Amino acid sequence: MARAADCFAKRVSGLTMRPMRQSQLFTKTRRDAPKDEVAKNAQLLIRGGFIHKEMAGVYSFLPLGLRVLNNIVQVIREEMNAIGGQEVALTALQSPEPWTKTGRWRDDVIDVWFKTKLKNGGELGLATTHEEPLSAVMAEYIHSYKDLPKYVYQFQTKFRNELRAKSGIIRAREFLMKDLYSFNRDEKEFRAFYETCAAAYKKIFERVWIGEKTVRTFASGGVFSKYSDEFQCISPAGEDTVYMHEEKGIAVNKEAYTDEVLADLGLDADELAEKRAIEVGNIFPLGTRFSEALGLCFKDEKGQTAPVVMGSYGIGPGRVMGAVVEVLSDEKGIVWPREISPFAVHLVALPGGNAEVAREADRLYELLGESGVETLYDDRDARAGEKFADADLIGIPTRLTVSERTLAEGGVEVYGRQDGKTALIPDSAIIDFLKKD
Amino acid sequence: MARAADCFAKRVSGLTMRPMRQSQLFTKTRRDAPKDEVAKNAQLLIRGGFIHKEMAGVYSFLPLGLRVLNNIVQVIREEMNAIGGQEVALTALQSPEPWTKTGRWRDDVIDVWFKTKLKNGGELGLATTHEEPLSAVMAEYIHSYKDLPKYVYQFQTKFRNELRAKSGIIRAREFLMKDLYSFNRDEKEFRAFYETCAAAYKKIFERVWIGEKTVRTFASGGVFSKYSDEFQCISPAGEDTVYMHEEKGIAVNKEAYTDEVLADLGLDADELAEKRAIEVGNIFPLGTRFSEALGLCFKDEKGQTAPVVMGSYGIGPGRVMGAVVEVLSDEKGIVWPREISPFAVHLVALPGGNAEVAREADRLYELLGESGVETLYDDRDARAGEKFADADLIGIPTRLTVSERTLAEGGVEVYGRQDGKTALIPDSAIIDFLKKD
Repeated sequence: MARAADCFAKRVSGLTMRPMRQSQLFTKTRRDAPKDEVAKNAQLLIRGGFIHKEMAGVYSFLPLGLRVLNNIVQVIREEMNAIGGQEVALTALQSPEPWTKTGRWRDDVIDVWFKTKLKNGGELGLATTHEEPLSAVMAEYIHSYKDLPKYVYQFQTKFRNELRAKSGIIRAREFLMKDLYSFNRDEKEFRAFYETCAAAYKKIFERVWIGEKTVRTFASGGVFSKYSDEFQCISPAGEDTVYMHEEKGIAVNKEAYTDEVLADLGLDADELAEKRAIEVGNIFPLGTRFSEALGLCFKDEKGQTAPVVMGSYGIGPGRVMGAVVEVLSDEKGIVWPREISPFAVHLVALPGGNAEVAREADRLYELLGESGVETLYDDRDARAGEKFADADLIGIPTRLTVSERTLAEGGVEVYGRQDGKTALIPDSAIIDFLKKD
Repeated sequence: MARAADCFAKRVSGLTMRPMRQSQLFTKTRRDAPKDEVAKNAQLLIRGGFIHKEMAGVYSFLPLGLRVLNNIVQVIREEMNAIGGQEVALTALQSPEPWTKTGRWRDDVIDVWFKTKLKNGGELGLATTHEEPLSAVMAEYIHSYKDLPKYVYQFQTKFRNELRAKSGIIRAREFLMKDLYSFNRDEKEFRAFYETCAAAYKKIFERVWIGEKTVRTFASGGVFSKYSDEFQCISPAGEDTVYMHEEKGIAVNKEAYTDEVLADLGLDADELAEKRAIEVGNIFPLGTRFSEALGLCFKDEKGQTAPVVMGSYGIGPGRVMGAVVEVLSDEKGIVWPREISPFAVHLVALPGGNAEVAREADRLYELLGESGVETLYDDRDARAGEKFADADLIGIPTRLTVSERTLAEGGVEVYGRQDGKTALIPDSAIIDFLKKD
């Protein structure tokens, strides 16, 4: 029987910490992406063996791609936990009832529904978002002001019946979504959390190296609020257009770009630059629209019944992955930020028939594994040029090369995928070097 | 910027290691389950706040339940990685093409399809299983005997349009499934892996404490094999009937229970006992049925083209969770196995107005957190009886109680949920005690 204290370490191990021999990996790099694939993110990710295109807007994640996606999920999870989020997993299948109450079952209100039918009768929908079912869950648990505030989030597959899907994993018909919902006593408490979550989003984008390219953008607010906020990552691959004030670091989405809005924000149209951008996140005041329709109310300190004030906060981990590829890749391939790279280190062996080089690379692979360094080990029987081209395409941030030359020079060559810098490090110092890298 | 070596530790932290104050948890225990819920597993899990019933056979996972589910996923993942599995995530949305090739698009062949439609035309299905799409992926990467064998698995949501769904999370219409697929050169290599995977399944069921109740069962094989194997957990809540030879530890599923099968297996009907059982896993030879239909072939060492020999291997983490609840719970509530419990320790404070007790409990909560012990801290303002009843229902294996009495006696009371044993442990020794527990 497992001991209590052992379980924690065991439980979290094995998720992403396994080293891997590239000769065992079932995917291989490809010279060309499918001809119908026009988006750069999907082209590079398919060529690198990260994803597989099932149909337009529907992509499977292969081993390398799933590792990246899981790492992005973990970055977001940490930041959502840090602001008090509690994780759940709601369902894709939806019965019409709560959606009818809010008026969103109709296909002209939510125009991306996939609908289906139960075998024994009854229409069902595939969730495009989860305000309705989560409000219904919370109504069972929230009764008093003492039960508030609460912040609940999930990573869950959304289905959206998009008419067009040409942007690779940036606009998918089936995709993983982090959606957090806030439940507050009043507008003031809600606003404070809204800004806390905006700050958490900023941290997330910084951790995946798109922070500098991503601006908070004023967008339409819908029924209950003048504005919502988007996080737009400036990129020619974006489907959105924003008007950006570079100095102030703020922007207005085209759909909210009116004279009234500019006046509100004190912006001058002449100072704004039109940019294409990828919407990598959004935060949205919901007011009491859903809580009133679904009976999510609480008794305040005076015993008065009031509807809960809600907000919603979305980030698509797959879309973030697509944005990272669009923004950071170069002519050779992908450049992964350290925290979300499928592996920390790409160890490339160039034995060229020299048994000692192979032995030395094997030994280094074992050492890296023992030291907890996630390593992809290119032990394949292939030419140096092919191995380097593959490594550049796959985009792991640190490459270690072992060859006759490096052995003769008494070490291992370290190459930084992003900055292109190389250094020769003695074998004995390599783990220390990586720890400081 | 994060350093390379720091990323690993950070990446895996935060997933399940966070301690939590019960006063902050948004769920509460309930006295009663919904009236239409007849399955014990769902009744207890709903009462404990682990899951929420969306509709028959469709359950959301709330914070406590998601932690259990994720822990079961991690146990399975570790065992699948240990036998060479590579993890992917395929899609729910399916185009008819590969399914038409294998004859399984028709609703009379797979009778649990949910079908839907793309907005711009074209029928889609929600995957009930993934032989077809994965074979199509593998056909892009497998060309030579050198590319084999390969073992690929995923944790993915399956949708099954079941006519009836009355067994709680044991038979759901939407559920997480671990499905592994094996790709081998020949029958002999396949058979060796088949037994390796059977042994991994045995380990999984042992790690979640249902090993003793679970028997490998002969079942119908379908078109390409005489038998398949199921793993049946003996329980009155099961939907299956098996005929079991207790001494030999083997059983035959009712659907395969014929004189011919008994003769094959050398079993005497008089020695078999009829039992109800929950199918917690199955392993299935697929032969070349899918590889031939979908062109998944390879060139062997002599240059001859041959179809890949396949097998499939399923375990539903939610169904395992339901089986654990059915088999291990008692009249007071759930009893979680250590490795999958939502928390390792339930710390219960009974201050009863004594500020020193509250301080001592707070101090212990901090100490447990610093020591990496996953702790749920019942810091609520509630009576002792209510707290103990809730703790028994929630079923965390180790309970620590801090009260005036335990303080007077110079320690903390440790209570084992499964064996009911109690002991008074001095504060200073509690972490050491848990490490040995």
